[in-house]
Amino acid sequence: MKEIAVDLNADVGESFGIYRLSNDEELFPYLSSVNIACGLHAGDPLIMEETARKALKLNLAIGAHPGYPDLQGFGRRKLSLTPREVKSFLIYQVGALWGFLKVYKGKLSHVKPHGALYNDAAVNPELALAIAEAVQEIDPDLILLARSGSEMVKQARIIGTKVVEEAFADRHYLESGDLVPRNHPQAIISDHLEVSRRALLMVLEQKVQTLSGSWIPLSFKSLCIHGDNPNALNLARTLRQAFQENGIKVVPIHSIIEK
Amino acid sequence: MKEIAVDLNADVGESFGIYRLSNDEELFPYLSSVNIACGLHAGDPLIMEETARKALKLNLAIGAHPGYPDLQGFGRRKLSLTPREVKSFLIYQVGALWGFLKVYKGKLSHVKPHGALYNDAAVNPELALAIAEAVQEIDPDLILLARSGSEMVKQARIIGTKVVEEAFADRHYLESGDLVPRNHPQAIISDHLEVSRRALLMVLEQKVQTLSGSWIPLSFKSLCIHGDNPNALNLARTLRQAFQENGIKVVPIHSIIEK
Amino acid sequence: MKEIAVDLNADVGESFGIYRLSNDEELFPYLSSVNIACGLHAGDPLIMEETARKALKLNLAIGAHPGYPDLQGFGRRKLSLTPREVKSFLIYQVGALWGFLKVYKGKLSHVKPHGALYNDAAVNPELALAIAEAVQEIDPDLILLARSGSEMVKQARIIGTKVVEEAFADRHYLESGDLVPRNHPQAIISDHLEVSRRALLMVLEQKVQTLSGSWIPLSFKSLCIHGDNPNALNLARTLRQAFQENGIKVVPIHSIIEK
Amino acid sequence: MKEIAVDLNADVGESFGIYRLSNDEELFPYLSSVNIACGLHAGDPLIMEETARKALKLNLAIGAHPGYPDLQGFGRRKLSLTPREVKSFLIYQVGALWGFLKVYKGKLSHVKPHGALYNDAAVNPELALAIAEAVQEIDPDLILLARSGSEMVKQARIIGTKVVEEAFADRHYLESGDLVPRNHPQAIISDHLEVSRRALLMVLEQKVQTLSGSWIPLSFKSLCIHGDNPNALNLARTLRQAFQENGIKVVPIHSIIEK
Repeated sequence: MKEIAVDLNADVGESFGIYRLSNDEELFPYLSSVNIACGLHAGDPLIMEETARKALKLNLAIGAHPGYPDLQGFGRRKLSLTPREVKSFLIYQVGALWGFLKVYKGKLSHVKPHGALYNDAAVNPELALAIAEAVQEIDPDLILLARSGSEMVKQARIIGTKVVEEAFADRHYLESGDLVPRNHPQAIISDHLEVSRRALLMVLEQKVQTLSGSWIPLSFKSLCIHGDNPNALNLARTLRQAFQENGIKVVPIHSIIEK
Repeated sequence: MKEIAVDLNADVGESFGIYRLSNDEELFPYLSSVNIACGLHAGDPLIMEETARKALKLNLAIGAHPGYPDLQGFGRRKLSLTPREVKSFLIYQVGALWGFLKVYKGKLSHVKPHGALYNDAAVNPELALAIAEAVQEIDPDLILLARSGSEMVKQARIIGTKVVEEAFADRHYLESGDLVPRNHPQAIISDHLEVSRRALLMVLEQKVQTLSGSWIPLSFKSLCIHGDNPNALNLARTLRQAFQENGIKVVPIHSIIEK
Repeated sequence: MKEIAVDLNADVGESFGIYRLSNDEELFPYLSSVNIACGLHAGDPLIMEETARKALKLNLAIGAHPGYPDLQGFGRRKLSLTPREVKSFLIYQVGALWGFLKVYKGKLSHVKPHGALYNDAAVNPELALAIAEAVQEIDPDLILLARSGSEMVKQARIIGTKVVEEAFADRHYLESGDLVPRNHPQAIISDHLEVSRRALLMVLEQKVQTLSGSWIPLSFKSLCIHGDNPNALNLARTLRQAFQENGIKVVPIHSIIEK
Repeated sequence: MKEIAVDLNADVGESFGIYRLSNDEELFPYLSSVNIACGLHAGDPLIMEETARKALKLNLAIGAHPGYPDLQGFGRRKLSLTPREVKSFLIYQVGALWGFLKVYKGKLSHVKPHGALYNDAAVNPELALAIAEAVQEIDPDLILLARSGSEMVKQARIIGTKVVEEAFADRHYLESGDLVPRNHPQAIISDHLEVSRRALLMVLEQKVQTLSGSWIPLSFKSLCIHGDNPNALNLARTLRQAFQENGIKVVPIHSIIEK
């Protein structure tokens, strides 16, 4: 039997100042990789440092999670940056996180764009290319973590940027392979048992049932858990157990790409 | 005759968005080192990238110029950050600049705090230590560029952080060795010929005449030119000529520390 | 028997974007006045509008709660603004809230500075005067809500700005009449029964027991509850009951000043 | 002969902190109305206060110039705010300016959205309606200053918000009546004599020649001068003289609507 491995990632460090967003620390033991917010849509230098330090202690793969510069909107609103601007804003944020990793002797393994930037670059080839270029130019070993089948994946492959595809077990999909937008009532699946069942199937079969009931193929090696989901902890626990019972190994993102 | 060498540095990249502050590019050919603003008191990712790229082309030593997070106040107002906070904010900003240097294959040579952070850390041992620690922890080869005789210099020497002292030819000094505050009518010397004469004497004699007329010793190996001075370009030209005529070599900051 | 009346105020609307800070709505029914954050240390236009609208529905007295422009530090860090700058930043924030009150046909009754601005102006006559002037110049009917015995109270009285003094039942006092700083382990009293007992005594006797055990007089007509206290709701309930049982009437701030 | 009157407006107060954008003061004597930036795309409380004070001295009609919250992009980038968010952000900014007018006993006469918000609302009926509602709800006497023929004009008329249409003499028009976008090489007409000739014709004939050479009708009662145009002062002078020679009276925006 071929061993199946998957990376389990979550967006973390999304608190700001006195504002707390989620229980990152409780979630950490269940993850293999984290994507740390870089201060422009969420996070601040203190949060970033604390988050990076704790994640490194648990040997999690550390990724940067850059977003549009829109703190009030949590980076979830489209902002018409040019590809040139996206590239600069991305390098800035990735570099900022790198600073903390240098201090704590850690390694930056990947970059995953956030929110509206993630969604825009999933369908816009120019933005996707700007991101793929930035990731590669910062460090050719850096991995771009992007939505399965998105433009980011395509552009990264064209120019030779390392890339890992990800899927979302707690989000509904459209037949196009896009996520059902957050403002849709059924965008998010909150029942952690259902999410766990979906995840298992997604990992084993590399396909997912869309909101309309049809099945679409879904190529991915990383699964994202939303830490701001109130059920995130239960989900993570259930997921890990289901993976273990089915011989699915959870490994950090850089182990996956090295295979 | 022993050859005398001095570094000539300027704070650059202090534009923001559509707002332009100074003619960095015109000043570059006369400098040996630049300190690039990192987005929290001035500068933004686009400005940082453009400034770093141009400075690297001219082989200038690149430094980070981090400040308090106070864009509206240009980092010139005291903000009561704890040493722990100062350290995080510094790592963030230095890292952000590092990102661009990785992309453009450049090297970060030094860090020079800006404005109120520079002034506060010049007299506050705890802030000074936090800064010296941050610089060393990011990279032990990184140089802290700090005011001659300041607490930053002292703390850096105590913990073994590389440090270069700087002096200001276009600012008046108090007998304490502190700069005359900016809101004092005689804080800034605008006549570039006078500044040039002062600079020459400062470099050759390592001393300076204070506002009250007395002379104080001034140990330094780097001289700072203020790019926002409307006369900066004339000053830089005059200075370089005066240096040349007096056998003073202008060298980047890392050459100085390696002697 | 002379009837005793006190205003019960709380700082509200201190959420930001997706970040939620406290359960303002639950607390509202127990209050007579609210101080709404104005976007520079906390709050944003959407939060302000929602908070103002809900508070107006309950006929609460609406106050502006301006702070230093320091969102990441929640306005709790000193920022060396000049009195001139403080005045402008205050007018800006008060005006912004006024905008929403115009839309919802409400009245702005008072202004209470926040955090470090509140503390700085409590002891700095120049800042206190700048604030008292701003409040009066915006509208001579506007009330400054300030710490009992502070410089703000003194300066307001000198220039004829309406002023109401406030006290804190859930904070410890120093013998100077200042609050024990927030970073002191005993700064905040979390037991709501103890706070309630203290409050009752403070209102009835206009004095308070300091951390060192001595008693100091405390002249005030408004009592502040901290909404970010996890026990705020229990405290508010207990307090209102204790007041009712002791014939203490809770009235909005403008009723107090009109007596 | 019927007397022709036009309002001459400019966007002003667009400096920020130490960053200066244009010579507002020099332009003021030639204007009848100003639109003051409100701190979110440009401007800050100090700039707003200084600008409002000086404009009031010259009896200029004062308008608020609110924009998207995007200082680094100067409000020129699309930001996907919902109509609900646009309304709140608009009320916030208009209110903030109102604060200064209360202090200086001035009157707010109008509101003119800035940059990308102006352009988006010119074609998006929902955004346009949100803006027209906000203006009316703040104060039914408040005038919306909007592009000739835009959705803002239509929506304002539908719900009864006062509105004045404006045209741009120093910008090229498309046949659709939209402005040629700023990134087009011929977007801006810099020759002040040509602009002056265009302006005269536009005012007298209420039509304009598009970039493609055709003529389109243009209904407007206010003409906008761009203060950041390096030729703004020459243009303003030339324009005023041309108007005088042709019997065109320059009057503040509220005089126009009262006719």
